[in-house]
Amino acid sequence: MTPEPVRIAVGPKDSELLERAIARGGATLSDPDTARALVWNGGPAGFPGRLPAGIEWVQLFSAGVEEWFDTEVFECHPGIVFTSAAGAFAKSVAEHALALLLAGVRHLPEQLRARRWRQTDFFPHIGTLRGATVAVIGAGGIGRELIDLLAPLGARVIAVNRSGAPITHPAVIETVPAHRLSEIWPRTDHVVVAAPATPATRHLIGRDELIQLKPTSWVINIARGPLIDTDALVAALRDGAIGGAGLDVTDPEPLPDDHPLWDLPNAIVTPHDSNPPQLRTTAFADHVAENVARFVTGRDLIARIDVATGY
Amino acid sequence: MTPEPVRIAVGPKDSELLERAIARGGATLSDPDTARALVWNGGPAGFPGRLPAGIEWVQLFSAGVEEWFDTEVFECHPGIVFTSAAGAFAKSVAEHALALLLAGVRHLPEQLRARRWRQTDFFPHIGTLRGATVAVIGAGGIGRELIDLLAPLGARVIAVNRSGAPITHPAVIETVPAHRLSEIWPRTDHVVVAAPATPATRHLIGRDELIQLKPTSWVINIARGPLIDTDALVAALRDGAIGGAGLDVTDPEPLPDDHPLWDLPNAIVTPHDSNPPQLRTTAFADHVAENVARFVTGRDLIARIDVATGY
Repeated sequence: MTPEPVRIAVGPKDSELLERAIARGGATLSDPDTARALVWNGGPAGFPGRLPAGIEWVQLFSAGVEEWFDTEVFECHPGIVFTSAAGAFAKSVAEHALALLLAGVRHLPEQLRARRWRQTDFFPHIGTLRGATVAVIGAGGIGRELIDLLAPLGARVIAVNRSGAPITHPAVIETVPAHRLSEIWPRTDHVVVAAPATPATRHLIGRDELIQLKPTSWVINIARGPLIDTDALVAALRDGAIGGAGLDVTDPEPLPDDHPLWDLPNAIVTPHDSNPPQLRTTAFADHVAENVARFVTGRDLIARIDVATGY
Repeated sequence: MTPEPVRIAVGPKDSELLERAIARGGATLSDPDTARALVWNGGPAGFPGRLPAGIEWVQLFSAGVEEWFDTEVFECHPGIVFTSAAGAFAKSVAEHALALLLAGVRHLPEQLRARRWRQTDFFPHIGTLRGATVAVIGAGGIGRELIDLLAPLGARVIAVNRSGAPITHPAVIETVPAHRLSEIWPRTDHVVVAAPATPATRHLIGRDELIQLKPTSWVINIARGPLIDTDALVAALRDGAIGGAGLDVTDPEPLPDDHPLWDLPNAIVTPHDSNPPQLRTTAFADHVAENVARFVTGRDLIARIDVATGY
């Protein structure tokens, strides 16, 4: 006897991409009435007040679910497991962080401006991540993905997380707790900021931190603008106190047209586009396929929402 | 009884970096007269006509050893194993190739030129290597290193080598022999040229190949300029037939000041600086440490020169 297929519905919008993800996960597309799970690609506004009795699990599209907590959706469906898309978008942001860091280390901004063959000018400025120490501040989804990308390049990672609980990874030479952050600046070659924005992380990097870095250090921010003191960064970039900065997020954001960062030759500003809409859709489909596979085989789901703690 | 240390000499120039590499490999620095091996950081001109009787192995500094074959060094020392630095410099070149490819895929050249926050302009142009197919043409040292870097980014590699002997790697979806190269163009998203320059590989990429690629495809060349037909490439970049090109090597090279490639917004030209002198020295030290460790433990040495075949 073949086992009964696991039936999963998609709504409120049809989506071929999500239908394929459900199939990839080993389940069968069905109507909500006969489904055991629902992949919901809309917001909380149109969410059904009462779900069909067979639904055990609902997968939501957003990584942050604050607006869902503002509704009564979770309270109205106490027996149902909800999962968010938390972590699904980390890979694209980590890829962007690596692109910015490598562009900096390989001196691409200056090389892109060249209009003639300047080999001997550029030779001394070409760096490598091989053997370089990279501080990854914030070892959540994005930080951990980035560590995976840095490993084969031969970088040595100092990971910074809240607790200092050691991150076991061949590329991680040390895990430093957030309260000992001040130790890392003179010891690292480059810094990637991947920490959440909280009152405690505001201006985590300012003048005192930047002057301890090296004239070849690149500072990458793909998290939130206010984690870096922009004025101090502009000064450090102007003075050559650091090698450069790659910023996908800024403070203020959007960056005004007359801001000095636009004109600094050692700054790369990308307008918060590390995770553009078209990549989000694909990344969500991958997340769905993974969670469907886990549901089908009875394993723990990724990014289960804890209604008590609110995330 | 402690085993006798393996003694290795460095010459003709003293080098702290190489002395440390010998120690890292588990051997002890000594004079040539009492050494079992010699790490030679000079050219063939000053090489001793007769080596001390205890020398079994000589490590040379160059990756290509044509100029050594022009002398009689190998013939004069028939009982001695010579190794070159072949492969030692592949990691830096592979890192450069990745920097160029990611810069292209993440639309960095255009973003670096922006002088205001152009998020909605840029969103549709931000690509990803995740799920993208990358053809790596030439699966020698550089190609294999690059495949290791592409793997955690989720790229799917079509590897092209002479024989088509399958390359076993989780990221490689197919290995295509050079004589079936014409099949890959419509099937790949991006192309990295990492093949040697031979009469057979001249203009390996020309008009007919470029028109089969996608308007989002990046073509990276870190091998030798003549592998790409430059005029055809310029035309494809102008027409938007491909997304862009990242070139560390050009034809002609050096690229003349008035060459159109300097002004094309979707071309990144770096002046053959993927493996600058200061990185070569470090990479050679790593190569030495590895070969010393192999020598000490009696394993096969890397990059052993075969005097009969000439490389």
